[in-house]
Amino acid sequence: MAKLVKSTLSVAALSLLTACSMTHQLASKVELRPTGDLGVVIERATGQVQIVNHTSKTSLAQIDGLGDLSHASIVYSRDQRFAYVFGRDGGLTKVDLLTDSIAGRVIQSGNSIGGAISQDGKLVAVSNYTPGGVKVFNAETLELVADIPATELSTKPRNKDGSMQRSKTVGLVDAPGNKFVVSLFDSHEIWVLDFSKPDYQVSKFKDIGLFPYDALMSPDGRYYIAGLFGEDGMALLDLWHMEKGVQRILPNYGKGDKKLPVYKMPHLEGWAIAGDNAFVPAVGQHKVLVVNTKTWKQVTEIPVHGQPVFVMAQPDNRQVWVNFAFPRNDTIQVIDTDSISLTDTLKPGPGVLHMEFTPRGEQVWMSVRDKNEIHIYDTLSKKLVKLLEAESPSGIFFTNRAHQIGL
Amino acid sequence: MAKLVKSTLSVAALSLLTACSMTHQLASKVELRPTGDLGVVIERATGQVQIVNHTSKTSLAQIDGLGDLSHASIVYSRDQRFAYVFGRDGGLTKVDLLTDSIAGRVIQSGNSIGGAISQDGKLVAVSNYTPGGVKVFNAETLELVADIPATELSTKPRNKDGSMQRSKTVGLVDAPGNKFVVSLFDSHEIWVLDFSKPDYQVSKFKDIGLFPYDALMSPDGRYYIAGLFGEDGMALLDLWHMEKGVQRILPNYGKGDKKLPVYKMPHLEGWAIAGDNAFVPAVGQHKVLVVNTKTWKQVTEIPVHGQPVFVMAQPDNRQVWVNFAFPRNDTIQVIDTDSISLTDTLKPGPGVLHMEFTPRGEQVWMSVRDKNEIHIYDTLSKKLVKLLEAESPSGIFFTNRAHQIGL
Repeated sequence: MAKLVKSTLSVAALSLLTACSMTHQLASKVELRPTGDLGVVIERATGQVQIVNHTSKTSLAQIDGLGDLSHASIVYSRDQRFAYVFGRDGGLTKVDLLTDSIAGRVIQSGNSIGGAISQDGKLVAVSNYTPGGVKVFNAETLELVADIPATELSTKPRNKDGSMQRSKTVGLVDAPGNKFVVSLFDSHEIWVLDFSKPDYQVSKFKDIGLFPYDALMSPDGRYYIAGLFGEDGMALLDLWHMEKGVQRILPNYGKGDKKLPVYKMPHLEGWAIAGDNAFVPAVGQHKVLVVNTKTWKQVTEIPVHGQPVFVMAQPDNRQVWVNFAFPRNDTIQVIDTDSISLTDTLKPGPGVLHMEFTPRGEQVWMSVRDKNEIHIYDTLSKKLVKLLEAESPSGIFFTNRAHQIGL
Repeated sequence: MAKLVKSTLSVAALSLLTACSMTHQLASKVELRPTGDLGVVIERATGQVQIVNHTSKTSLAQIDGLGDLSHASIVYSRDQRFAYVFGRDGGLTKVDLLTDSIAGRVIQSGNSIGGAISQDGKLVAVSNYTPGGVKVFNAETLELVADIPATELSTKPRNKDGSMQRSKTVGLVDAPGNKFVVSLFDSHEIWVLDFSKPDYQVSKFKDIGLFPYDALMSPDGRYYIAGLFGEDGMALLDLWHMEKGVQRILPNYGKGDKKLPVYKMPHLEGWAIAGDNAFVPAVGQHKVLVVNTKTWKQVTEIPVHGQPVFVMAQPDNRQVWVNFAFPRNDTIQVIDTDSISLTDTLKPGPGVLHMEFTPRGEQVWMSVRDKNEIHIYDTLSKKLVKLLEAESPSGIFFTNRAHQIGL
C-alpha cells in the first residue's frame, strides 16, 4: 500500500515536474526574445511564413495555414509583436512573433492586394480587388470597423448577384494624422481616408490619370505618388496641400510609344532620394532613371542589366540595389547615388524577388526563390555573409517597418 | 502511514505547484513584453531610470543604482532589449528591458558625456572628459575593446600623476560603415573612428574651429555638424567626401558681438529639415533660425518665447517643437515648417527639459522636471493625453532609436 502511494507520488511529481520544466523552457525561450531584430519571410508556394532574427541570422519558426501568399505583404503592430499578413485570397492573418502562432485570421474579401496600419496602430486597412474597396479592422481583435466600397463601374457587366462591379483598389498606405491613402485602378481616382476622428472622412480626387496600378509615399509621409498603367506619367498628391489637387509629374514615365514587352511593372517602393535626385525603375527598359525631385524631370539615366523591378535605397541613401524582371532575375546590381554610377553586379541565382535592408543598413537580405534560399550580403564589402533555407521565399519584412511612415 | 504519505504528497505537490505557478506568472509576464514600444526615462536626481511603454502609456519598472545621471543619455541594442545608459560619473550601465534589471555596469572614466552604438550593434563607444578620449566596449560583455586617448594639451598644467592633460571629447555619434565621429573640445578637432575592420583607423581633422561643444549627424549619416563655443559659425564634415576636409558654415551662428547672457547652449540634435530649410535654435537669443541647407545661409528667423534649447522635428517634419532655457523653461512652442510660423504655445509647467516623439509622431512625451511629471501630448490636437509621475525626469528615449543612424 505504502509502495503504491509512493509510486503515485512519483508519477504525480514527475508529471508536475514535466509540466513545470516545459513551462520553464517556454519561459526561458520566450523571455529571451525581444522584437527589435525580428522579421517575417513569405514562403509563397506553401502558404507559410518564417520568423527570422537578423542579429543571429537564423530562422526561429515556421508557421503554416496562411492561405494564398502570392504577392503577400506585411505590416507590423507598433510594439513589433504582431505581423499582419495580407494574402492574395483576401486572408488577413495576425501572426504573433512571441509565441510563433497565429493570433487571428479573417477572410475579409475574395481577392486583396496589400494593406497598411494606422499611425496610432489601432487600425489595419486592406486594399481589395473583389469586391473593390477598402476594409478597416480593429488591429487588436480584427473586427470590422469600416467598409468603404470603391466607386461603381457603370460600363462593366454586373456581378452575378446583380450588384454593380466596383473599382479595384491599389497602393494603400498610411499617412500622418491617422490617414490612409489609396488609388482606384478602374475609376482613376485617389482617395484620402481620414480616421483621426471617430467618424471617418473620405476626400476623393478624380481623373488623376488612367489606371493607377501601384503607389509610394515619400518617407516623411508628405507626397503620395501613383504609377499609371494606362498612360505615361505619374500622379502626385501633396498631402500638405490637398487643395492643390493631384498633379501630373514625369510626363514621359511609362511604356512610351515603343510598346516594349513589359515583363513586370516595376514596384513603386523604396525609391532612393539622395540630394535632389530620386532613383526610379524605368518601365520595360533596361534603365534606372535619375529624376530631380524639385522639377520632377529626368536628369539622366543609368543602363542596367534588365528591366528593373525594385530600386531599393540603403537606409543611408548612399547606394541603391536593383533587382530585375524574368528572364534576367538572377542578378542584382548596385548603384552609387553620389557618383551616379554602377559599382557592383552580383549573381545570387535565379528568382531574386525581394530585398530588405537591416534597419541601419549594414546588411541586406534577399529572396532567391528558385534556389529556395535567402542570401545575406554585407553592404560594405558586397560579400555573401550567410545562406538560409526557405521554401520559395518572396517578400522579406523586418520589424523596424513598424516605426516607418507610409508603408 | 498511508495518511502520512498522502500528506507528504500534498506538500510536495503544493510546493511544485507553487514553483510552477511562479514560473507561469513569470512566463506570462515576460512573454507579453515585446520591445518595439518601450522607452527609458532618466530620473536624474535619484540615479534611477523608469522603463515605460508608449502604447499603454504606463511605467513598467523603476531601476536604481545607476549613479550620477545628470546629462545622461541612452542608446539601444539592435534587438531593442538593452539600454546603454551613459552617466556623468563615467558609469556605463546596461539595462535589460525584459527583466527590469541591470545586466552590466562599468565605471569606465571619471567624467563622461554620452556615447553611441556601432551600425552592427557590436560596439558601444563612450565620450570622456576625464581622462579625455573615447573608450569602446564590447556591447555584449562591456569588455574594453579600444582605448583612444584624445590629443595631449601642452599648454595646460599636468595631471597630478605627471601625465599631460588631454582634450575633452564631445558630440560622439555613429555613422554608416561601422564608424564613430567625435569632436575634441580643447584641441579643436574632429576625429572619424573607422571600426569596419578588426584594426580600427582614426582620421583626424585639425583646426576645425574653436571649442566644438556638441554636434549632430544628418539623419542619413552623411553630414556631421559641430557647434563652436569659442567663435561664431559651425564646422561641417561631409562623410561622403572626407577628402574635402571640414568646411565652415553658418558664419554668423553663435553668440555674436552682443555677448548676450547665454543661459544654456542649445542642443544640436533633432533639427527639422523640411524641403531645403533646417530649423535651428539661435544661441542666446529668443529666435529659431531658418537656414537653407544648400547654401547654409540664414533664410529667415522666427521670434519665440525664450532661448531655445531643443528644436525637435516631428517624425514627418511638418512641425517642430521647441523648449527653452531657464528661467523661461515652463513653455513649449510649436512651429509649422510649411508656413514657417508659430502655431501653438503650451505651458506644461516648470522645467520642461526634454521631448521625445512616438516613432510615427502621433504623440510627444515631455519631462516636466519641477512638477515630477511626464506629460504626453497628442501632436494633432495639441491636447494633453496623459500624465505620469516621475522623480525629476530629464531625458526620455524610446527604443526605435535602435534603428536610427547618427545618435
